[in-house]
Amino acid sequence: MSTGNESRVSIACIQMQPEVGAKSRNVAHATELISEAHARGARLIVLPELCNSGYVFESREEAFALSETLADGATIRAWAALAARLDVTIVAGYAERDGDLLYNAAAIIGPQQVLGNYRKLHLWGDENLFFERGNLGVPVFHTPFGRIACAICYDIWFPEVFRLAANGGADVLCVPTNWVPMPAQPAGLPVMANLLAMTGAHSNGLYVAAADRVGNERGQPFLGCSVIVDAHGWPVAGPASATDEAILVADVNLADARRHRQLNAFNHVLRDRRPDVYRSVGVG
Amino acid sequence: MSTGNESRVSIACIQMQPEVGAKSRNVAHATELISEAHARGARLIVLPELCNSGYVFESREEAFALSETLADGATIRAWAALAARLDVTIVAGYAERDGDLLYNAAAIIGPQQVLGNYRKLHLWGDENLFFERGNLGVPVFHTPFGRIACAICYDIWFPEVFRLAANGGADVLCVPTNWVPMPAQPAGLPVMANLLAMTGAHSNGLYVAAADRVGNERGQPFLGCSVIVDAHGWPVAGPASATDEAILVADVNLADARRHRQLNAFNHVLRDRRPDVYRSVGVG
Repeated sequence: MSTGNESRVSIACIQMQPEVGAKSRNVAHATELISEAHARGARLIVLPELCNSGYVFESREEAFALSETLADGATIRAWAALAARLDVTIVAGYAERDGDLLYNAAAIIGPQQVLGNYRKLHLWGDENLFFERGNLGVPVFHTPFGRIACAICYDIWFPEVFRLAANGGADVLCVPTNWVPMPAQPAGLPVMANLLAMTGAHSNGLYVAAADRVGNERGQPFLGCSVIVDAHGWPVAGPASATDEAILVADVNLADARRHRQLNAFNHVLRDRRPDVYRSVGVG
Repeated sequence: MSTGNESRVSIACIQMQPEVGAKSRNVAHATELISEAHARGARLIVLPELCNSGYVFESREEAFALSETLADGATIRAWAALAARLDVTIVAGYAERDGDLLYNAAAIIGPQQVLGNYRKLHLWGDENLFFERGNLGVPVFHTPFGRIACAICYDIWFPEVFRLAANGGADVLCVPTNWVPMPAQPAGLPVMANLLAMTGAHSNGLYVAAADRVGNERGQPFLGCSVIVDAHGWPVAGPASATDEAILVADVNLADARRHRQLNAFNHVLRDRRPDVYRSVGVG
């Protein structure tokens, strides 16, 4: 049942191939792709994890040299100007510096201002050598078209992240990511990263927009397969190619996120939770 | 990396078609199917939700009349004798009576004794008219071959249930179920119920053995698609047919459940959780 089109928005996921260390080139390339997504009607544009720096750092010093602050980093300034010029909201992964600390972060940049920052909660592999674990929780950011939360890559292995986003009121979870292949992936089924996006969306009544990178960096292959998932949990754009750059665009009604949480006269995916039971045995 | 075959067990999921109200017929039919699963080597045998009573009750009184106690119900007694005779462990859904209260429950019946009882935590649709919500948490039952937990049907829409099972030490989550079709299921992708089993298994390093029913009862169709999923999250038997009775059998090594939780030198799917963050914003 739909009562109107009050929360329609066109979402884009930009699947790109950054090059580690080539920051100016990465930012310029992302800028081109953002402009193309805008030309295709997108108003909310999601880019991959660490899309300005690349991913496979050789040392903490290399990661540090490629990092910047949210307040006055060159990448953030460039994208804030772009968001203002195009009247879009950009969610993009970058290596964030805060004093001497580094975070694997995503900036949420609206047309008027930087709306906020997310810091990856669950670090994967060698990220543990370079970054601190996120300390900002799962904040929800408010825009004229709806409410956004973020997660980065391995974060979606933790269903608690979807719960935090949905409980906080998010309509769409933006997922800048650098997914890598997982063991034992069978042919003929979507990649596990896509399945996690789909079930997380379904169990919480959330749209999920996951923008992955492609390519092979210093021997590490990435997964591609960017995807935009509706609040029932089904892909509405993608999965994209495993190897090529791509721009996915989907026109969605974020109001459906809230409507779809009510499954029937008795059941609501969030209100049916049993925190009494979950707490009593030490989960959460 | 496998260091031995110390926890090998053959698991069966029995996909059957109970008939509402025909309790003796249902128990006799399930007994035949259990014997057949045993003949195919199964040692742990999972049956559907409410497999002795049927599902679509017309009234609380009908549900009450078909219910029985764990301690001396006729179905439980029959299956306890069967488990002893065949040297198998049976997990089977039944309508449980406790005084004047009813629960949508599953009995865990070992060859020596009834090991325990699980009561569905998250009731679906009209079940809310007939049953009380489960009040036993997600207990873990110990057997010679490994550790079992249970969830019933809609319970697996709640990723907290997998967390509770894994945190409690379970190797395999047994899921007696009566899945019904969900809206907007696209062709060409597994049913959402299967995806929830797969991602729940993957995110927790758990085997999942889900036994569904088939058929159409008083106008309600059921989904079939029983499945046994390994601790990576991939099907090792099934999904079964959407319409026909079937016995799925998979020979698995439950020790892999624990090994697969360690993803690399840094990452472990359970230890990487951030309960500090989850709690601080009210989840769980």
